[in-house]
Amino acid sequence: MQTNALFTNVRPAGAAATNVLVRDGRIASIGTAANAEGADVVDGGGALMLPGLVEAHTHLDKTVYGMGWYRNEVGPRLIDKIDNERAQKKILGIDPARQSARQIVLSVGHGTTHIRTHVDVDTEIGLSGIEGVMATRERYRDIVDVEIVAFPQSGMLVRPGTVELMEEALRMGAEVVGGLDPSGMDRDPKGHLDVIFGLAQRYGRPVDIHLHEAGELGAFATELTIERTKALGMQGKVTLSHAFCLGMPDPVAVGALIDGLRDAGIHIMTTAPASRPAPPVKRLVEAGITVCAGSDGIRDTWGPYGNGDMLERAMLIGLRNNFRRDDELELALDICTYGGAKVMALDGYGLKPGCRADFVLVDAETIAEAVAGRPQRKLVVKNGRVSARNGVATMEAP
Amino acid sequence: MQTNALFTNVRPAGAAATNVLVRDGRIASIGTAANAEGADVVDGGGALMLPGLVEAHTHLDKTVYGMGWYRNEVGPRLIDKIDNERAQKKILGIDPARQSARQIVLSVGHGTTHIRTHVDVDTEIGLSGIEGVMATRERYRDIVDVEIVAFPQSGMLVRPGTVELMEEALRMGAEVVGGLDPSGMDRDPKGHLDVIFGLAQRYGRPVDIHLHEAGELGAFATELTIERTKALGMQGKVTLSHAFCLGMPDPVAVGALIDGLRDAGIHIMTTAPASRPAPPVKRLVEAGITVCAGSDGIRDTWGPYGNGDMLERAMLIGLRNNFRRDDELELALDICTYGGAKVMALDGYGLKPGCRADFVLVDAETIAEAVAGRPQRKLVVKNGRVSARNGVATMEAP
Repeated sequence: MQTNALFTNVRPAGAAATNVLVRDGRIASIGTAANAEGADVVDGGGALMLPGLVEAHTHLDKTVYGMGWYRNEVGPRLIDKIDNERAQKKILGIDPARQSARQIVLSVGHGTTHIRTHVDVDTEIGLSGIEGVMATRERYRDIVDVEIVAFPQSGMLVRPGTVELMEEALRMGAEVVGGLDPSGMDRDPKGHLDVIFGLAQRYGRPVDIHLHEAGELGAFATELTIERTKALGMQGKVTLSHAFCLGMPDPVAVGALIDGLRDAGIHIMTTAPASRPAPPVKRLVEAGITVCAGSDGIRDTWGPYGNGDMLERAMLIGLRNNFRRDDELELALDICTYGGAKVMALDGYGLKPGCRADFVLVDAETIAEAVAGRPQRKLVVKNGRVSARNGVATMEAP
Repeated sequence: MQTNALFTNVRPAGAAATNVLVRDGRIASIGTAANAEGADVVDGGGALMLPGLVEAHTHLDKTVYGMGWYRNEVGPRLIDKIDNERAQKKILGIDPARQSARQIVLSVGHGTTHIRTHVDVDTEIGLSGIEGVMATRERYRDIVDVEIVAFPQSGMLVRPGTVELMEEALRMGAEVVGGLDPSGMDRDPKGHLDVIFGLAQRYGRPVDIHLHEAGELGAFATELTIERTKALGMQGKVTLSHAFCLGMPDPVAVGALIDGLRDAGIHIMTTAPASRPAPPVKRLVEAGITVCAGSDGIRDTWGPYGNGDMLERAMLIGLRNNFRRDDELELALDICTYGGAKVMALDGYGLKPGCRADFVLVDAETIAEAVAGRPQRKLVVKNGRVSARNGVATMEAP
């Protein structure tokens, strides 16, 4: 396809059927087909047009997708999963470059145009995960944008040498400083967060912290994060991922956390987990907090689920939050599109003239139907070029 | 296809590849291909063979699937949904015969071979739902078995005339006596349950009660149900559907309920709801309670979700119960197969010689992969005949 293309008979975000002219990778105009001379014409067949889906939290480096079924016999504790994974990386030969490519191809087939991936950094594998995913993102740059979080999965303070590796990852090209359960993993919430925010300050990078700690322990870590975000003027640059503590039953305690998060401009990422307390996303959005979503690990040694389909994630958000009304399902999709775009600070995201031409066509009457039904993606366009047709990405995986 | 067929290169429940000979609608033998003379040969291509999926709780009569997207703007209360639905049945023209056919065709495409459906009986529509679903089940009897529960969705004692309609439904051919939130709907738990169990005794039928009542209120209804089941000797013939109260946080209270349910031989049906307290299915199964699962309403005026895929339901059970290990995903599938079969008292269900030839072939390495990945159903066989190929049922919907 040329970089100039006219998509006819498409319905942007469910609006009436119209034409969308794409020129030089951006949406040039919507409506009239003027100035479309020389453009390829693509008949949208009345499809619903959605903005490119945003996978705002996953682990590209360690999926075992495409490696044969991994039989999970892992113990129940968090540390069982972390230790097992470190061992299996060697036993199974989980190659970050190859595996991230496989997941990218899977995700693009489902309409994803942007991915934030947390990539393990530890004293055993060093920076090989970062290197592998960086090589893959370069290779697949035409069909997806990938942002890398340097992620101390096995702990940071408890593993001397990890902080230095984190720094090196940031110098190499990881964009975001990752953190993990300041009390649960590093046993030192103040120490952990001081290091994370210190790196962020020194390198001028945003922060994204995995916070699985539930209830009051998670609330404490949230308070510490709010304090640092405000003190350092990092409003809009900090994300708390999972944040199960926001699902605790005490509405007063949750209300205080929500107020603090809003005042500090901290974003929340959720997978909408069915088996854990989860952030009440409607309440958060209504309070003015940006919420994004992600698949988390896809078919890895932690768990067998996931397919990279962010329309399915929107459905899971709906199921988790008891969304039934159409306006609620639209909110669920917003989280998987505009929410992620805001968290990743994407430039020119959306379906308006001037925006980058990153979009998805599906056969669905309404956004709610697209979320509940998850139809095959007819066409996925990235920077004005087709990146997937009928569920299959235009680039292959190794 | 003949009623005699040899399925080669299939892996029953994940076992080594073998042959399955089907004769006169039953599995004649597994392993050797002796006595296969004259049988059609179907190459399974190494597919995993699962027993027919059992949809143990749905509402065939009121899906709006295939009627154009229903825009949901319904209020938040239970009564909002019930009142809206009664009104929409007329406004939209939700025809029970046509709509049940559409859902059956959808479900069979996903590998379902048996369905228990609750069908509304009330003083406005009378028995038209029962009549419509009965006509449809007769028409589709070659591809699915349907069991009908006479279901007083709009209340029973609060709507004089409903009990008489329930009786008439049972005389017409509904197999099961349904009930609904004895306190929440009928405002009289003793009265409601006495009538339900009275009908069951008079007509010699099993009971299936929708119990959405949570916490202590649901626990009380559960106790009343246990008492009646034991007093009437109805062990094995009573199902509590939803039973959110079993998801309450107090482990001692839940333990007492579990003991009572086991002693009374009461079954539990769950949809594994992500947004409500839900029965802890592993704990129930380990206690000796039979657990089955269902989609509940599929694309109806209550909510937009559902596709009739019981492999996806098994995945949702896994997600809700934090199942990650392969043995746990196998349990989730058991609930959607053998659990449902036991609740519906199916004769000859399973993958052994002598069982009815009701099974599903999918391309998956293991049961866990089938649950997590939900691959398209390659072939669905009902009573020894193909009922669906590549996700599409052999019979069409109106």
